[in-house]
Formats: sequence, C-alpha cells, structure tokens
Amino acid sequence: MASDFPRHLLDVESLRRDQIDELLGLSARFKRERASARAGKGRAPRHELLPGRIVVTLFFEASTRTRSSFEVAAHALGADVLSFQKDASSVTKGESLQDTVRNLEAIGADVLVVRHPAAGAPRAVARAVRASVVNAGDGTHEHPTQALLDLYTMRERLGRLEGLRVAIVGDVLHSRVARSLSFGLVKMGADVTLIGPPTLIPPDAPAWGVQVSYDIDSILPKLDVCYVLRVQRERQRLEYFPSVREYSRLFGLTRERVEALPASAIVMHPGPMNRGVEIDSDVADLPGSVIEEQVTNGIAVRMSLLYLLLGGAGAGDG
Amino acid sequence: MASDFPRHLLDVESLRRDQIDELLGLSARFKRERASARAGKGRAPRHELLPGRIVVTLFFEASTRTRSSFEVAAHALGADVLSFQKDASSVTKGESLQDTVRNLEAIGADVLVVRHPAAGAPRAVARAVRASVVNAGDGTHEHPTQALLDLYTMRERLGRLEGLRVAIVGDVLHSRVARSLSFGLVKMGADVTLIGPPTLIPPDAPAWGVQVSYDIDSILPKLDVCYVLRVQRERQRLEYFPSVREYSRLFGLTRERVEALPASAIVMHPGPMNRGVEIDSDVADLPGSVIEEQVTNGIAVRMSLLYLLLGGAGAGDG
Amino acid sequence: MASDFPRHLLDVESLRRDQIDELLGLSARFKRERASARAGKGRAPRHELLPGRIVVTLFFEASTRTRSSFEVAAHALGADVLSFQKDASSVTKGESLQDTVRNLEAIGADVLVVRHPAAGAPRAVARAVRASVVNAGDGTHEHPTQALLDLYTMRERLGRLEGLRVAIVGDVLHSRVARSLSFGLVKMGADVTLIGPPTLIPPDAPAWGVQVSYDIDSILPKLDVCYVLRVQRERQRLEYFPSVREYSRLFGLTRERVEALPASAIVMHPGPMNRGVEIDSDVADLPGSVIEEQVTNGIAVRMSLLYLLLGGAGAGDG
Repeated sequence: MASDFPRHLLDVESLRRDQIDELLGLSARFKRERASARAGKGRAPRHELLPGRIVVTLFFEASTRTRSSFEVAAHALGADVLSFQKDASSVTKGESLQDTVRNLEAIGADVLVVRHPAAGAPRAVARAVRASVVNAGDGTHEHPTQALLDLYTMRERLGRLEGLRVAIVGDVLHSRVARSLSFGLVKMGADVTLIGPPTLIPPDAPAWGVQVSYDIDSILPKLDVCYVLRVQRERQRLEYFPSVREYSRLFGLTRERVEALPASAIVMHPGPMNRGVEIDSDVADLPGSVIEEQVTNGIAVRMSLLYLLLGGAGAGDG
Repeated sequence: MASDFPRHLLDVESLRRDQIDELLGLSARFKRERASARAGKGRAPRHELLPGRIVVTLFFEASTRTRSSFEVAAHALGADVLSFQKDASSVTKGESLQDTVRNLEAIGADVLVVRHPAAGAPRAVARAVRASVVNAGDGTHEHPTQALLDLYTMRERLGRLEGLRVAIVGDVLHSRVARSLSFGLVKMGADVTLIGPPTLIPPDAPAWGVQVSYDIDSILPKLDVCYVLRVQRERQRLEYFPSVREYSRLFGLTRERVEALPASAIVMHPGPMNRGVEIDSDVADLPGSVIEEQVTNGIAVRMSLLYLLLGGAGAGDG
Repeated sequence: MASDFPRHLLDVESLRRDQIDELLGLSARFKRERASARAGKGRAPRHELLPGRIVVTLFFEASTRTRSSFEVAAHALGADVLSFQKDASSVTKGESLQDTVRNLEAIGADVLVVRHPAAGAPRAVARAVRASVVNAGDGTHEHPTQALLDLYTMRERLGRLEGLRVAIVGDVLHSRVARSLSFGLVKMGADVTLIGPPTLIPPDAPAWGVQVSYDIDSILPKLDVCYVLRVQRERQRLEYFPSVREYSRLFGLTRERVEALPASAIVMHPGPMNRGVEIDSDVADLPGSVIEEQVTNGIAVRMSLLYLLLGGAGAGDG
C-alpha cells in the first residue's frame, strides 16, 4: 500500500479528501481486527506493526480521555508510550517548548502528540523537530483526531458522508471540535448546519462552507446526525448566555427533541457530557446515541493515524 | 480448569469458601512460577496469559502500594495497564463516575480496579459496565484483595486457615482491611478476636462471627497470628483515643508483647506502618514478621484474581 | 563477558577506570544497535535482554528528562518500569524512606533509580535493599549517570578522554553534575579547569585534582570541551552574583566566546538550558554543540548501566 499521508496531523483544514478516505478505510480494518483479536482473547495481529517506536503524549491541558485513547492505540501497535502532563503557565525550570520537544526527540520520540491551550502550538512543535506531530487539541483552533473519529463513526453507521445532513449544536465559537468537524464534513461532501445562540456562532462561519441557524427545532426533522457540543464552562470567560437553564431550554437535546429526529438519525457528542445541560440525562442512553461508539472508534482511528504517520507499509497484507 | 469465579470482586463477604480456595491455590502456582522465572532471569511462562487485555486502575484516593501491586501483576500476565489518579472532590470537568467508567470501557478496559472514599462506589461502577470490577478499597467498607493476600500468607506460613487463632488489633472501626479480613477468616474456619479500645470496635462486630477483647496482653500467648492495623490518622476526624503515646502503651505491638507470642506465631501488618505507633520500630524486622512477604504475595494473589476474573482457562496446563 | 561492575551506582568518585571503560564500551555497542534497529523499523535485538525485570524510578524532585531517559532505556531492554514522583517534604502517610523502598523491593523491583534533594539518600536506600540502586541526583552531591553520558559523548566525538582539556563553567558549587563529571574526567586522565565566580567555586576543588580559573576568556582558546553548567535559580538561596545580566557578561557562553574556541572544540550542557543566561540563544544550535547528542547518548549509557547492574552476561554475543 503506497501512502502519501502527511508527516504531521496539525489540522483537518489542510487534509485532502483522499487522505481522509485512506485513514477511514484503514481504521475500519484495524477496528475489525482488534475486535476479533479481543474476542478470541489473543493478541491482535497488528501488535507488532510499530515495535520499538516511541509515542510521546505531551499535554499542557488536563485530559484523560484523549490521552488514554492515544496510549491504548500506541500499545495496540506495539509502540512504547511516554506521557507528560505539564502546566503551560509554569514551563518547567524555564525551558522553552522548543527545547522540551527537541529533548524528547533526542531520547527517541517518533511521534509527539501535543495538546496545548495556545492555538498553533503543535505547528510550532512541528517546525522544531523531525518527528511526526499530532495536534490533540490547540486552543480554539482544531482537534483533528476527534473530527476524524466522528467522520468514521458517521460513515460506519450511515454508510456514507456525501450528502449527509449534519447539525452541530451549541457553543461553536469556543469549540475546536466544531471547527475540525465542519472542515472535515464539508470536505467529504456533507451538508452542515451550525446551530446555537448568535453570540456563540463564529462570525466567519459562512466562509467554512456551512449554514447557520438559531432555531434547532425547525432543523431537527431533516437531520441524519445531531452533533451536540459540550458546554465548556471552563473555557468561557464571559457570559454568553443568561443561564444554564436558559441554554438547556433553547438548545439542549431533550428527549422531545430526539423524538423530532428521523428514526434513522444518530446523536453524537465528543464527551465528556454535562448531562442535564447540553444533553438530557437519558438521551445519551437512547438507541440512536452513538456516543460510546465514538470513543471505541477513537482507538482504531488513532491506530491508523499513528501507523500512517510512521510511514507504515503493508498494513493491508497478512 | 473450569472456574465459577464471580465476574467482579467487590467484597469478601459474598465470596464462597471454594472460590477463595481456588484463588489461593492458583496464587501458590503463580508465586512459584514467577519466583523461578525471576531467578532464571527469564520471562515468566505466564507472561502471555492475558495479551492485549487492558487493566485500568482508577484511584480516587492516593495509593502507591496497592496500585503498583496491581500494575506489576497485570504486566506479569502480559496485560496493558492504564492508571488514573483522580480527586474525588473535584470530578474532572463535571463528568459523572458512571460516564467516566463507561468511557474507559469504550476504549477497551477489561478490568477496572477502583479505589474510592465512598463505600459502595465499586458496586455502582459494576452496575454501569460489562467489564470486571475490583474493589481496591472503598471507604470503611472492604478491601478484599488485601484480605485475600493476608489469607494466602497465613496459609502458606502456617499450613492452614481452619482453626487458626488470629487477633486483629487496633482501629477496627475505620478499617476496611479488618472487615474484609474478618469475613474471610471466619469463612475459612479461623477463630478471630478483634482487639482495641472500645471506641474503635464496631458495635456490630459480634454479628461478624468474631470475638472482641479490650486486653491484648491476655490474648497474645494463645495466638497463631497477630495482625496489627495501621493507625489511620488521616481517616480519624474525632479523637478516639487520648494520644498516640497512650494508644501505643495500650495496644502497640512492642518487643515485649512479641515475646509473649508463641514462638511459631507470625506478625502481620497491611502497611504502610507507623513505626513507633501501632508497632515498635524493630518489631517489623523480627523473624516472626511476615510484613514484607505480605507485599510480595500480593503480586501472585492479584495475578490470580485478574486471571480468574477474565475467565482464564488452562492456567493449570502448559 | 565477565563483568565486575558494582551492584549499585551511587557516585562516580568510587568507580574504577576500568569499570567506566567497560560501561562506555558497552554503550557504544548499544547505541549502534539501537540506531540500526530504529532505522530498519524493527525491534532492537537487545529488547529481550531484561525480560520481566522491574526498574523503579523514585523521584523526590521533579524531573522529566532524566526519568524519561531511564524509562526509555529500561523499555529498550524489555524491562518493565514503575514510576513514582513523590514530594520529599510530605512523606506519604508518614512511611519512612526505608519502608517505602523495601516495599518496592517486595513487589519485585530489581533496580531502584532514586533522585532526592538530600545528599546521601541513594546510599541510605542501598543499605536498606538487596536490589541495585542508581543515584539519579542527590542534593549537591553527585549525578553519576549524567557524568557518564558526558564522558561517553566526549570520547565518541573527540576519540579519547586521556589528555582532553575540559572547562566546566558556572555554578560549580551547587552542581552535582560538576562534581561527578570532575571526578570522572580526572579518573580518565583529562585536564579539568573549573571556571566561575569565586563564590561559586567550592573551596575544596583543588583536592579533586582539577584547576580553577576565574577568567573564562583566557582559557577558551586552549579547550577541547567547554561544558556550560545550568544556572540553577531554584537551588540558590543566597545571591551569589549581582544579576543574571552580570553573570551572563562574565561567564555566559556567547557567540563571541564560541568563536574563541578551537574549531574542533565542542560545547556541552547538561540541560535544561536557560538560553540567554548561561548560554546565548543561538549557541546551542551551532555545529560545535553536542547538547542534543548528550541526550541521545543518555539512552545507550543508561541501557548499559541497567544491563551491567543486573549482572548481564553475553551482551557481546548474539
């Protein structure tokens, strides 16, 4: 299998459609193999794809979910993992980010998975090292692996991305997930509507190739996917909406709203959920919800990513 | 080997005697094999029993000893480990415990090892997931793996559990170890006496099938095992005894008290010790002390547990 | 290969020259093999040298660089790693250092890698356990693995250690690196000059077998190696020099000073650098700088160390 996957994954915006297709295709294969190996209680056949490779997770924001997902994916390919949780405000002993990552490369890092509160930090890292860099979320810029696993989940569940009608609901303005996902969906030919209070829709949204609506209820009956964003209380410095209760009333995915969706539509959320705020407590557990599947798919998607970044060849063979 | 070991280990109270026997028997085999593999500097033959399996340690209370023991046990069986140390008071980003553990299951957790300050938390986790759950200590309820490694150590050293005369000394009221161990010992036919200040003996102790005494010195000469509990200063909100010095004088295991034990008796402690408080500084290093052996045995017992929980078959072969 | 490498590595001061030679020789072999395995994307042939062995890193001071280096080295030999970051001031639950390390030994630790703010702590650990102990930095005493990787780097780059003219520049007084490196260099026959403000040169330096100078500029043209120490702001309780700017002017390695070095001379630094303080921002990236190579060599040197400590035999074969 010849691949021209890029050396870094810094954003979805600059990925090509065929590169996304390649990654999703390989993910399906990895998911199938991992599931069957786990069912048979044997080690996955792919376990020796990246032996001796070193994946470093370098997180300047707290995260368990994304970091663990990368760690499990790396281990599933036989790679070693080094994890660093750092405080961005107090750079340890005054060393620069550039020196930190060069040092990690010097001890053998093949992939640096970076989460940082500043947009663009992973790109700065990529300029400093020869290793591959993955953006695991940078400020309000992008969170490309979340978007890729979401694309994977939609395509697996609904059979296609082209022409899919997707609403992304909530605080789009502060959401790196919404940006990455919008870019990805538009690129794959889906029809995207951003829904939220006017103060939380970015002014440049029309330039993304998406539509905007402030009225969730008129849109619901036409959707294939209702993607609910997390209300990120920790990111909001100003009051963008009067109260949680008000937000919930206007944009929360309630059971009534789920019933307004077509029967075949799916409900998605990037996690972690604020049950009772942006999504009703029991909605996440309804049959249309694929929220846990998103998490599971994250493993296969990140396995594929690590594999492609490291120039893996022959994954298609036995 | 057909096993009907339960899917979760939430307490000792509901374990059957034959299940404990099965676990202790397998532990002896694992201990022997691990020791000989380590002596021969080779990898233990059991290293590939649980390949690709994922053991998650989720600790809402600080612990190095128990967490490390589970990690070493999991690695010794070839399983991968993900470790989380969380602050129970500030649940990260507001996600519920139930969503946290479902998320861990979605990335592939096969066993969740949970320590939590609230009694019953591991049981709540077990209701939320299909994965196996191990209680690694929940409030003042139970700490079953500590009790099982203690039973193992007694049986290995003294040849039996049936009829063994065991005293558990100290702050029984706040000790999840004392509860689990009492249940286990009574189940296996031992003769248990709880010893401590009246304020630190639980009122319902007689219902456990144990005896109670407030006078350590009259009991010592009749014991096979003197099990000293840790004075848990961090758990005690009220003053249950006048001073550390007073506690030490009345219930501390001094060298003089050790000399009052039969020559064949053993001294145990779940660790970490407060030397000079509940146990004299040099008592832990006397020949009758098996305190370090308890720690070592914890590995084999936890290996067996993980193996049995995951439905391991054929450990007796090969 | 018969080795009489000591059981612990507590300091460079008590190592013999032939022991250092043995370690450096094995490091060269491990470095070559690791590089070729990584280039060929295969697992290094040495990956199974220490299967099932357990290396514990026990750090009572924050560190990512040294700790990670030991972890990567251990993994490269197939050993398992347990990492503990502790706060020396608040010994967890009141347990003594001695009980902590005995407990780690009881769960199977074969090597304890200890960093501690108190000089002599690793030696105290070595007295308490049968496992091998590595000093990863103790107060202002020694940091032997840093010195060994520095010796390795000098010998690899310059072909020899005997007769090499080395200056160690900066805050020698507080530098465990300077002490270990001076002992090592003198032992291997190098010609060492300590350079720094008089307040930061230890009074007993002449007894180390080194020379002392307060004037960097007169020394530079005669050097093979200019080793720049980190200004350790976190260690300095008193004001040893008037200001950072003044320090930089008198002892900082500027581009002009680099140009005064012989063309073949190399620049070294133990990291992490304070660019603009003890070393100019761009000096670290000049061709004569081997600062990243020091980090890379740290892996091979620590692999060799772990291997020799564990009594490895036959590394030269197969």
